[in-house]
Amino acid sequence: MEWKNFSKLATYKKLAEFGTPVDVKEAMAGENGAKRVAEYKVPMSSGMVYSYASKQVNDELLDLLQELADEAALTEKYAALYNGDIINTGEKRLVLHQLCRGQLGDDVVVNGENKRDFYLAQQARAAEFANKVHAGEIVNEAGEKFTTAVQIGIGGSDLGPRALYLALENWAKVNNTLKMEAKFISNVDPDDASAVLANIDVAHSLFIVVSKSGTTLETLTNEAFVKDALEKAGLNPSKHMLAVTSATSPLANNPAYLDSFYMDDFIGGRFSSSSPVGGAILSLAFGPEIFDRIMAGAGAEDILAKNADIRKNPAMLDALIGVYERNFLGYNTTAVLPYSQALSRFPAHLQQMDMESNGKSVNRFGEEIDYQTGPIIFGEPGTNGQHSFYQLLHQGTGIVPLQFVGFKNNQMENDVVIEGSTSQQKLSANVAAQIVAFALGKDDDNRNKYFAGSRPSSIIVGDQLNPEALGALLAHFENKIMFQGFTWNVNSFDQEGVQLGKLLAKKVLAKDTDGALTAYSELLGIF
Amino acid sequence: MEWKNFSKLATYKKLAEFGTPVDVKEAMAGENGAKRVAEYKVPMSSGMVYSYASKQVNDELLDLLQELADEAALTEKYAALYNGDIINTGEKRLVLHQLCRGQLGDDVVVNGENKRDFYLAQQARAAEFANKVHAGEIVNEAGEKFTTAVQIGIGGSDLGPRALYLALENWAKVNNTLKMEAKFISNVDPDDASAVLANIDVAHSLFIVVSKSGTTLETLTNEAFVKDALEKAGLNPSKHMLAVTSATSPLANNPAYLDSFYMDDFIGGRFSSSSPVGGAILSLAFGPEIFDRIMAGAGAEDILAKNADIRKNPAMLDALIGVYERNFLGYNTTAVLPYSQALSRFPAHLQQMDMESNGKSVNRFGEEIDYQTGPIIFGEPGTNGQHSFYQLLHQGTGIVPLQFVGFKNNQMENDVVIEGSTSQQKLSANVAAQIVAFALGKDDDNRNKYFAGSRPSSIIVGDQLNPEALGALLAHFENKIMFQGFTWNVNSFDQEGVQLGKLLAKKVLAKDTDGALTAYSELLGIF
Repeated sequence: MEWKNFSKLATYKKLAEFGTPVDVKEAMAGENGAKRVAEYKVPMSSGMVYSYASKQVNDELLDLLQELADEAALTEKYAALYNGDIINTGEKRLVLHQLCRGQLGDDVVVNGENKRDFYLAQQARAAEFANKVHAGEIVNEAGEKFTTAVQIGIGGSDLGPRALYLALENWAKVNNTLKMEAKFISNVDPDDASAVLANIDVAHSLFIVVSKSGTTLETLTNEAFVKDALEKAGLNPSKHMLAVTSATSPLANNPAYLDSFYMDDFIGGRFSSSSPVGGAILSLAFGPEIFDRIMAGAGAEDILAKNADIRKNPAMLDALIGVYERNFLGYNTTAVLPYSQALSRFPAHLQQMDMESNGKSVNRFGEEIDYQTGPIIFGEPGTNGQHSFYQLLHQGTGIVPLQFVGFKNNQMENDVVIEGSTSQQKLSANVAAQIVAFALGKDDDNRNKYFAGSRPSSIIVGDQLNPEALGALLAHFENKIMFQGFTWNVNSFDQEGVQLGKLLAKKVLAKDTDGALTAYSELLGIF
Repeated sequence: MEWKNFSKLATYKKLAEFGTPVDVKEAMAGENGAKRVAEYKVPMSSGMVYSYASKQVNDELLDLLQELADEAALTEKYAALYNGDIINTGEKRLVLHQLCRGQLGDDVVVNGENKRDFYLAQQARAAEFANKVHAGEIVNEAGEKFTTAVQIGIGGSDLGPRALYLALENWAKVNNTLKMEAKFISNVDPDDASAVLANIDVAHSLFIVVSKSGTTLETLTNEAFVKDALEKAGLNPSKHMLAVTSATSPLANNPAYLDSFYMDDFIGGRFSSSSPVGGAILSLAFGPEIFDRIMAGAGAEDILAKNADIRKNPAMLDALIGVYERNFLGYNTTAVLPYSQALSRFPAHLQQMDMESNGKSVNRFGEEIDYQTGPIIFGEPGTNGQHSFYQLLHQGTGIVPLQFVGFKNNQMENDVVIEGSTSQQKLSANVAAQIVAFALGKDDDNRNKYFAGSRPSSIIVGDQLNPEALGALLAHFENKIMFQGFTWNVNSFDQEGVQLGKLLAKKVLAKDTDGALTAYSELLGIF
C-alpha cells in the first residue's frame, strides 16, 4: 500500500482523458431517468439509501472510479486507519473516532491500553453520570434536580454536538425521552454567554467544559464567565461543572469539576461527537440509550465503508464522485440541503468537518501538491433555501453540486392537510421536484424563464430522522471526507491553518505588534 | 444613460488588461501596511467605517474602478431607481425599498398615489398597532396582554426580519426595550411549526402571516397549521392573527385577521425588511421607535450611496472591488464573517439577498451574457468560524475573498477579564489577527505550517451593533448588490429561477408526473 499523490496515479490520467462528461439533462430525460433512479442507488444502514442517479456518471465512469478506489487503495488505507496506523502524519497520531462505535479490525493497543476499552469505559462513565442526574442521585446544592445541560466548547466541541442535539430535540420530545434541555456557549463574544445565561435557570444547570488540551482560550474564557455568573448567584461552581478533556490536561481530575470524562489525541475535534464530547451532553439530554442508538447507526455505516466495491459503499462512492467533480469538472463548492428543519445546523457541522479536514495545499508528507483539494461547503434546510439562494443554483453562471437529504416521515407526527396534501408530502414533493428541475431544466423562449438544467445532485433518503438515521448520516459524511482525503493524499486529521490567527491574536492582546497589525488593532479600538 | 453589458464597456477591457493583480502580502508588509489601513477606508454612517486596505487594490486600480463606475453610470442608474424608473425589467416594476427609509429624489407617484406617503402610512399603522398591543389596548380574548409575536413567512419574509430581530434581541434586553419575544415559522416541514408552537404560550401570541401575493404555499400551509393549533386550544384564530401582504391579495382586508399592513410589488421580498414585512414584527418586538432608528441608519447609508466618487461611497466601492474579484481574479465565493454573535443569521440573509439578486445568466433584457455574475455567499460568526472552516480559507487550494464585520464594543456590557483582557478585547484581537494572518501569511520550512498569505479581505468596523449600525449594515449590502447588478447589467430584482421547482412540486402533489419525477417521488415515499 503506497501513499501517492493523486496526480501520480494512472487513473488520474484516465479520468482527465475521460472525454465529454455525462450530461445530466440528457441522461435523466424520459424513461431512462426513471431507470437510472432505480439503478443508481446504494443501500445505507438503517433503511436509508444513497441515490446518485442525477450525478454526472455512467457505468463507464463508475468503472473508472472503481479503478481509482483500487489504485488509491482506499479500502486498505481505511483498514490501516482502524487497525491503528499513524494516519495523522503531521501530528504523528492514530485516528480512532470510529473505534467509539465499533471494532472494525485489530485490537488497537497504545502503551498497554486497549483503546476501544478506554473509549467504552469513558462513555460508560458519562452514561452512569447522566443516569444519576436523571434519577436525582446527583443534584444541586439545594438537593434539587438539574434540568439543563450547557456545553461550553468551540469548533468540534460545539458544532457536532449542537447539530446532533438539534436534530433529535423534537424527536426526543414526542418520544418522551428529552431528559434535560441542552444549550451551547461557544463564541468568545461575551454576548453569547450572556444571552445563554439570561435564558436558563443557572441553579438547575450543569455546565460541561469541553477542551481536549484544556487550553482553548475561548472555552476557558467562557468557563470563567460562567463561573463568575454562578458565584454571583451564590452558587458553588464546582458543584455545577463537568469537564470533557484529555487525561493529561489541566482540567482532568480537577476538584473544580463534579466529574470529568476523557478523550485522547487520537480523536480530532471535528470527529469527536462520538466521544464524550458528544456523549456527555447527548446522554444528559436524551439518556445514554439514545446516544447508544446514534452510535449504532454510525457503526453500521462504518462497516459498510469497508466494502471495496464502490457500488456497495455509499461513503466511498459519494467521495469519488465528489473528487471527479472537484478535479475534473472544476466545481469548487458543494451545497448541503437537508429537507428537515431538525437538520438546521447539520450543514454547519459538515462545513467544519469537510473544510477543516481537506482544505489543504500540502500532501500528508508536507509536500506541495498540484491539484485542487476540499471544496467549500454551505447549506440551509429546504424548503427555506428554495426561497433564498436556489435562484443562483438554478440560473447562475456556475455549477454547484448539490447534496440533498430527505425523509419519508417527519419527526413530530403532527401534520395538517391543506389543498389535499400534508406538509410532509409538500416537503417531499419539493425535494423530488428540485432534483428534477436541476437535472432537466425547462426550455422557454423567454430566456429569463429558461432553465439550462444539467445541474448534478445526489440525495440520501431515510424513513425518519431518528437516532440510528442520524448516526448513519454522521458516519457517512465522516467517511466520505476520509476517503476524499486518502484520494487527495492529504492529512485530513490536522488543522495547522488555524494556528497563525491564534498566535497573532495573542500578540495583539500583549500589544506586541507592528505595521498592519497595529493599524488594525487601532481601527478596532483595541489600542 | 445606457444599459450595456459589462463586457461591452471600454473599462472591461482595461480591467482585463490591468496586468499583475496587487499582491496583498506585498502591499500590506511593514509600515506600508499601516499606511494602507490609514488611507484605504471610507466613512459610513453611524460612525462606522469600510476598510479595504487588505483588498487587491492600489490607486491605479481604484482609478480604473472609478472609470468603470462612471462608464456604467452607476450613480445615474441609482437615481433612475429612486426616481421611479422601471428598474425591474422582467416584471416591469419600480424598485422602491429605499423609499421606506427616505426620499432620495423626486416624488414617486403611481396611479395618483405618492409611494413614500403610502409606505410611511403603512408603517405608521403598524406602529400604532404595536403601541396599542404594548399598552394593553389590543389584548387577547381573555383581556390579557400579548407577550409573543410569531412571524409566519419564508424567504424574504423570514430571513431579513429574523436576522434583524436576532441582531438586536439582546441589545433590546439590556436597553429595556424588548417589548415582546419574537419567533419565526418558515419551513413547510411540519416539525418547524410544531416546535415553535410547543415553545410558546399560544394564548398570548400574535401571529403575523407574511406573503405579498397571499398565495405562498409554505406560508399558507403554516398559517393553517397555526390556526388548527389555536382552535384546538379553544382560541379564535382571527383574534390572534395579522397579515402583511399587498393591498390586492386575498389576505388583505380579510376578517380572518385583526389587522393587515400593506407593501406592494415595488418592494422585492429580499429587500422588504424596511416595509411592514420587517416593520410589523420588529415594532412589536422592540417598539416602533427602535424600528425607526434602524430605518434612520439605513437611510443615512442610502444617501452616502448617491456619491459618484467611489472613494466616498462605501457600497459602490465594495461592489466594484467584488466585481473585479469575480470577473478578473476568478473568485466565485465570498465569506461573510461578522465578529458578533448577534449577527449569527445575518450571513443567511445576505446569502439570499446576494445570490437571489445576482445569480443570473441573462441581462436585464433577457439576453444571455458572456461573463460571470453573483458569487456564492456563505458565512458564520467569528470566532466560531475560526474553529471551523478557516483552515480552508488559510491553506486551501483556492482563494475566498472575506468580508469581515467587527465592533469596538459588545451589546450586553457584561464582560470578564481573563489573562489580562476582556472577552470583547479577545474578540476584536481575533479579527485584527485574522485579517493580518490572511494578508501576510507566515513562512515556515515545514510546509504544513506555512501560510501563503495574499488572501484578500475587507472589514466594516462600528462602535456597537445598535439599531442605527444595523440599519447601515443592511443598506450597505442592499446597495452593494444593487451596484453590482447595475455593473453586470442584470435585473437584480426578479427571481424567475425559483419558479420551476414550485411548478414541479405541484405536479408531484397532483400525481401528474412521469420519468424521473415519478421515480424520485416513489423513492421519497410520496407515491
